[in-house]
Amino acid sequence: MRISGLAESTGVPVATLKYYLREGLLHPGRATSRTQATYDDTHVERVRLVRALTEVGGLPLATVGRVLAVIDDPDAGRLGVLEAAQHSLSGPAPVDGSAPDDDPAGAGRAGRWLARRGWLVAPGTPAIADLERAWDACDAADIGVDEARMDAYADAVERIAAVDIDSVPSDAAAAVRQVVLGTVLVDPLLAALRRLAHQHVSVSREAG
Amino acid sequence: MRISGLAESTGVPVATLKYYLREGLLHPGRATSRTQATYDDTHVERVRLVRALTEVGGLPLATVGRVLAVIDDPDAGRLGVLEAAQHSLSGPAPVDGSAPDDDPAGAGRAGRWLARRGWLVAPGTPAIADLERAWDACDAADIGVDEARMDAYADAVERIAAVDIDSVPSDAAAAVRQVVLGTVLVDPLLAALRRLAHQHVSVSREAG
Repeated sequence: MRISGLAESTGVPVATLKYYLREGLLHPGRATSRTQATYDDTHVERVRLVRALTEVGGLPLATVGRVLAVIDDPDAGRLGVLEAAQHSLSGPAPVDGSAPDDDPAGAGRAGRWLARRGWLVAPGTPAIADLERAWDACDAADIGVDEARMDAYADAVERIAAVDIDSVPSDAAAAVRQVVLGTVLVDPLLAALRRLAHQHVSVSREAG
Repeated sequence: MRISGLAESTGVPVATLKYYLREGLLHPGRATSRTQATYDDTHVERVRLVRALTEVGGLPLATVGRVLAVIDDPDAGRLGVLEAAQHSLSGPAPVDGSAPDDDPAGAGRAGRWLARRGWLVAPGTPAIADLERAWDACDAADIGVDEARMDAYADAVERIAAVDIDSVPSDAAAAVRQVVLGTVLVDPLLAALRRLAHQHVSVSREAG
């Protein structure tokens, strides 16, 4: 199909598709003349994936580019995949590769909590700083997440992670896809489930 | 303090503070002359809350306005609070108040799954459509979330929701705060925990 057909199939305007092509988020079509190219189902699938990552996953396009780069290069073991996925989702590393001196990842409350909990995570994992920041924001809003509540959350989240890891296929390329996309696209699904479960738990208790 | 002091205390530029004042996200200071006002700790706290909601919670300012409106009017029962919180977080309702004809909330796969699961949720709850959309995005990315996997997620999320509901204080104003802010600010905390749990579960299994 021509680029106009790709726009029709995906509901994404031609100008946006051309932007994706320029930014390397979409692979080039097969050239049929100096100014025209044809596109196929692989292009439709890739455009849908970019839209899912931006619209449902809420990722900025720069992050989508890093995520797709990991998906397109599945040459890594399972833990390597996990690390690559998490790093691609957490923004670029500082230019000199080091954490800021006043708050090295893992040195704060989140790092101490992780150590006590006994979770095996690589030092410097971006999610440690994300946890610290989210925990601080909860404190700033005075919503009282203490260590006991964090442990209760962690018990439940361990079960979620076990479901996720069980779903990772053994084929390396499929595993990369599952880990990277599952990390970003299942978050909104869990957030929606949590809101629904709030209602269910609340109504059940009032009825009981 | 003057507005420059408020800027210093919060790290938010004066221009941004003036914008918050114009948009009603921040309550006016006490006027000391025709062109000056003084601000106190309640202003510092409110500015920090707006920043937490936008920067960690990722909410657009229009949504922050709706969330703060709910917090500032805690005249509602506990379930009313939950519904008000969820609606404030899900964007404005359609102008005529109805769902689009071709996809009424609850009629899709998510609604059928909820009915089978037996979760008690109000019809038309925005989170039902959010769940449908997130589930479709998972399918578009081919990451295989079937009903069994959704049930496994739901088992874990029910435990998270129970922790949340147990944390809601009995005082009405404090309850509103806890429900509204806990809904939006605990999501990023759970997302960070999930990434860390992925590593822990993955490493534990390889070691086992």
